[in-house]
Amino acid sequence: MSAIIESVPNFSEGRRQDVIDTILAAYSSVEGARIIDHSSDPDHNRSVVTLVGAPAAVTEALFRGIAKAAELIDMNQQRGEHPRIGATDVVPLVPIREMSMEECVALARALAQRVSAELHIPTYLYYKAAARPDREVLAHIRKGEYEGLKAALAAGEEERRPDFGPAQLGAAGATVIGARPPLIAYNLYLTTSDVAIAKKIAKAIRHSSGGMRYLQAMGLLVEGQAQVSMNFLDYTRTPLHRVTEMVRREASRYGVGIHNAELIGLIPEQALLDAAQWYLQLDNLTPAGILEWHLP
Amino acid sequence: MSAIIESVPNFSEGRRQDVIDTILAAYSSVEGARIIDHSSDPDHNRSVVTLVGAPAAVTEALFRGIAKAAELIDMNQQRGEHPRIGATDVVPLVPIREMSMEECVALARALAQRVSAELHIPTYLYYKAAARPDREVLAHIRKGEYEGLKAALAAGEEERRPDFGPAQLGAAGATVIGARPPLIAYNLYLTTSDVAIAKKIAKAIRHSSGGMRYLQAMGLLVEGQAQVSMNFLDYTRTPLHRVTEMVRREASRYGVGIHNAELIGLIPEQALLDAAQWYLQLDNLTPAGILEWHLP
Repeated sequence: MSAIIESVPNFSEGRRQDVIDTILAAYSSVEGARIIDHSSDPDHNRSVVTLVGAPAAVTEALFRGIAKAAELIDMNQQRGEHPRIGATDVVPLVPIREMSMEECVALARALAQRVSAELHIPTYLYYKAAARPDREVLAHIRKGEYEGLKAALAAGEEERRPDFGPAQLGAAGATVIGARPPLIAYNLYLTTSDVAIAKKIAKAIRHSSGGMRYLQAMGLLVEGQAQVSMNFLDYTRTPLHRVTEMVRREASRYGVGIHNAELIGLIPEQALLDAAQWYLQLDNLTPAGILEWHLP
Repeated sequence: MSAIIESVPNFSEGRRQDVIDTILAAYSSVEGARIIDHSSDPDHNRSVVTLVGAPAAVTEALFRGIAKAAELIDMNQQRGEHPRIGATDVVPLVPIREMSMEECVALARALAQRVSAELHIPTYLYYKAAARPDREVLAHIRKGEYEGLKAALAAGEEERRPDFGPAQLGAAGATVIGARPPLIAYNLYLTTSDVAIAKKIAKAIRHSSGGMRYLQAMGLLVEGQAQVSMNFLDYTRTPLHRVTEMVRREASRYGVGIHNAELIGLIPEQALLDAAQWYLQLDNLTPAGILEWHLP
């Protein structure tokens, strides 16, 4: 099997269908990279694309998409509910298979450098690719949005200088590029209609209230069934199997069980293989032990 | 992802290295099919090849391997400990990914027909591909070996007639072609050195003594640790997760637990995904829910 990355670029157009289609066409113009999902929101005036494929193909597709958005979107005119600083606003790179986070960070930095050099767009590195600790969080970089950042750079504010490219904003604005693990949206339905139990469990397991570090959770009532709804921000460190068994234990504390689980959107296969390895206690399982790994 | 099959052809040469190499070269001469394992036994005078790849590529490689073995092995001269009726003795086709057993059966039948038509070798269909119930079991077809089958056909014994091809054996003998699920060799180590416990558990879970239908098991002492050693003959019907939890329950009956598991050889990824789905209770997981399924 070959290396695979995912990227989820966000661009600042969610209304003009011809512009959206032209930018999507740029993202899908590279052999070996494929759009597997996209959605546009007119209120946010923003579109989100999910792109997967070989690392070189995906980064080339990202470059073409960024170039096309810079051509077609004028940030001086663009308005929408979602905060933004550029025509292409944010571009996370995600390692999926046979790629380390470090390799994704290197790809993100190279892409940012190329975007700045060839398109003259200021770029900022964020999260795992951040070159400075104060740029790990996207919201810090996007403070004041396009208009605020433009003014800050014009005023010569040193701490807002981009990592690459000119220290001034043109009509395409700036683009934030970085690396992060894949997100998994995973829900557990409980054998009860008492949503208070789901809320208590969510509070017990989520990071914000003392639980697992890379986990967001809330309790909901869905069609009469209590549900613990979760986002896994880094399944390699806070894995599905561990949290599922925590939820099972907390639920049994209230005399209920897990009825079933569901995924929203896609899951990286590795998260399922990790669960199988943990439950089956297959300590020495490696990719080379899986038949498909040897396929041509 | 594209369709993948495995095949494990057995040919009747395990001594002459040049002959073995030439036949292996034929098996690996097709783009899209790959030899991932092979072994030869001089006492058995037999070699076993594991081939994987796209269905059309694998069946073409099988045809070439069968043709080459027919050219280089004379069954009138061949002697060895392992029962055999042909230069290429038996060829199981195994569905691995995006292939049903029915599709593998159809491939096996088409291959048998081609081998008989183009190479004039009698072929017999076995196991899931059997055209008659009495040919489901390989040993029935191979009764009397090359010499016995040759005599039976010469004597005009109707019930020994091949499914395809001439009703007489030449120097290449006959070939048995069929379809079966993948085999998984999986061991569980117990937290005890008392091999009697492993033997009791093996007896409780295996088909032959009243246990699970597609399971073979025995108890062993391996480096001072009791081990339940298992072969899964059809993991889709007797799955790893169910048997692992049975072993855990039986072991707890004797006050011991499962220390860890190990695989011998390769496992189809689907067996691990099935375990993850079962343990996580992901009722509605489909291949389309896995990110890699959408890759180019």
